Amino acid sequence: MDTKHISRAPHDVLAEYLRDDLSEVNKLIRARMASEHAPRIPEVTAHLIESGGKRIRPMLVLAASHLCGYHGPYHHHLAATVEFIHTATLLHDDVVDESAQRRGRATANLLWDNKSSVLVGDYLFARAFQLMVECGSMRVLDILANASATIAEGEVLQLTTAQNIDTTEDQYLRVIRGKTAALFSAATEAGAVIAAAPDPQVQALVAYGDALGISFQIVDDYLDYGGAGDGIGKNIGDDFREGKVTLPVIRAIAAADGDERAFWARTIGRGNQREGDLDHALELLERHGTMQATRAQAIAWSQRAKDALDPLPDHPLRQMLRDLADYVVARVN
Amino acid sequence: MDTKHISRAPHDVLAEYLRDDLSEVNKLIRARMASEHAPRIPEVTAHLIESGGKRIRPMLVLAASHLCGYHGPYHHHLAATVEFIHTATLLHDDVVDESAQRRGRATANLLWDNKSSVLVGDYLFARAFQLMVECGSMRVLDILANASATIAEGEVLQLTTAQNIDTTEDQYLRVIRGKTAALFSAATEAGAVIAAAPDPQVQALVAYGDALGISFQIVDDYLDYGGAGDGIGKNIGDDFREGKVTLPVIRAIAAADGDERAFWARTIGRGNQREGDLDHALELLERHGTMQATRAQAIAWSQRAKDALDPLPDHPLRQMLRDLADYVVARVN
Repeated sequence: MDTKHISRAPHDVLAEYLRDDLSEVNKLIRARMASEHAPRIPEVTAHLIESGGKRIRPMLVLAASHLCGYHGPYHHHLAATVEFIHTATLLHDDVVDESAQRRGRATANLLWDNKSSVLVGDYLFARAFQLMVECGSMRVLDILANASATIAEGEVLQLTTAQNIDTTEDQYLRVIRGKTAALFSAATEAGAVIAAAPDPQVQALVAYGDALGISFQIVDDYLDYGGAGDGIGKNIGDDFREGKVTLPVIRAIAAADGDERAFWARTIGRGNQREGDLDHALELLERHGTMQATRAQAIAWSQRAKDALDPLPDHPLRQMLRDLADYVVARVN
Repeated sequence: MDTKHISRAPHDVLAEYLRDDLSEVNKLIRARMASEHAPRIPEVTAHLIESGGKRIRPMLVLAASHLCGYHGPYHHHLAATVEFIHTATLLHDDVVDESAQRRGRATANLLWDNKSSVLVGDYLFARAFQLMVECGSMRVLDILANASATIAEGEVLQLTTAQNIDTTEDQYLRVIRGKTAALFSAATEAGAVIAAAPDPQVQALVAYGDALGISFQIVDDYLDYGGAGDGIGKNIGDDFREGKVTLPVIRAIAAADGDERAFWARTIGRGNQREGDLDHALELLERHGTMQATRAQAIAWSQRAKDALDPLPDHPLRQMLRDLADYVVARVN
């Protein structure tokens, strides 16, 4: 499907279709992030929660529950839950290390920003936990508990693979499942489970969320080496400077000759970077065709996401989810 | 009761009585903190979980459940749960406080880094969440979700009351409920609930855990101005240097004349401290009798904890919990 012919972005189409639900979800988010006694909490979260987040994860919950015939009301609680978990992980991701600062990484974070990020993240996670409990489904709690563990394990793994030029594609896949796909698939699975969907439908939506999340994250990692100026708010080369070992680099290291391997060992492995290194890295990615290979991987996962939806009933939302999978990779076209 | 006549510390008596249970809990803790894919996780947590923690919170779960006639097996899961939550908050606290020492050892964030402390804390919290789900009790999940929110809210409130010399005793109480009492009372409540105890017993154990936790934290805050050299691994004056506004200081500020208020405004409010300031602070606490008043508060809460146990059946564990409440304040005698 050629997404260039779609006049509106699929997430906008979804948001329009789910407008009334999203309005309820937003009300719930605002009500539950409030804290009578600690006014800093909404101060810290408001900028994250209000500032143009696309609400992809809540929409996945809502779409999955409707696709499986659910009529509420707990899909709103679950949608708010996944947005809170997502926001909590963003806040914890913001925590900056003094050691990282010492390595010269530019950051404006003061100490209290670190403190607030950690504790307000914890608060949002606790609020998410309360929202899930209100849904009253032990199976949903199980799904989200397992997703939380996968997310945290993936984040720790990312920490230990950073600067490790021997990182494998398997490890990379585990990291991005934790970073992105675990919450996507928990969102679609929980939406199906709350609707008491039959198992093949639940499994179809798990597979969709997982593949969509993987595709989404591979695209993100691709764009970090080639997405300048597309408005995603990321600078080209951030991952390179931080020593993150993502798919384009893993492929380039696998294809490297001796000199090239020494280059990666110095720049990524030891974090010793000079002027011109990013340009040379980009050149190596092009030389070995790893940008094309990364793009192909993203497209393959997007296709897998679309195919996963086959067992689901014919429904406008099924097409919208397929369009969403196309849209994710449209960013690399 | 005069604790000087007790030959063994009450937590050791409890640990002996609960020995078989604690052995199961320790097995569960070791099994669940493992991570096949992210070996840093047990590296970071082993440090905290193995290093001489007294397992007070797990023992509260076990004691409460046995007092209410429970014979297992989910008290072990719950006991491991509260220890994981406790350890997660310590890890997150280490980021927040920049503390140099915890339990007399270098903190995880100095040995590894802030980011590991945050993410491994998140992982332990997720593992705790999985353990609770296995217990299969929605009411227990509700108790622990609410406790998590109270803990996080209290931590954020502590952040906003730091360096605020107008902090009230009410705010202080809310902070220490979050810091300590919320998890103590969730431990005793969950232990009772898993045993399907009648409501008066549940409420008795909630009140006990709450009062014990408050007493425990007031003693901690007292010792920060007077507990040098007792082996608790805390340096005298840490709270003063960090601008934490705890009960001894709140009382001293309430009794301050103009010069004294200016002193507190400079040292705590603006964090502008010089040589000799801690000695002067200690002198002011003595002058206004606020150390004695703080001690009296701790003792009153300890008494409240003991009295709360009256509705519970006559049982060796009931006396052990009473002795534990005495022991908490024995540190200030």
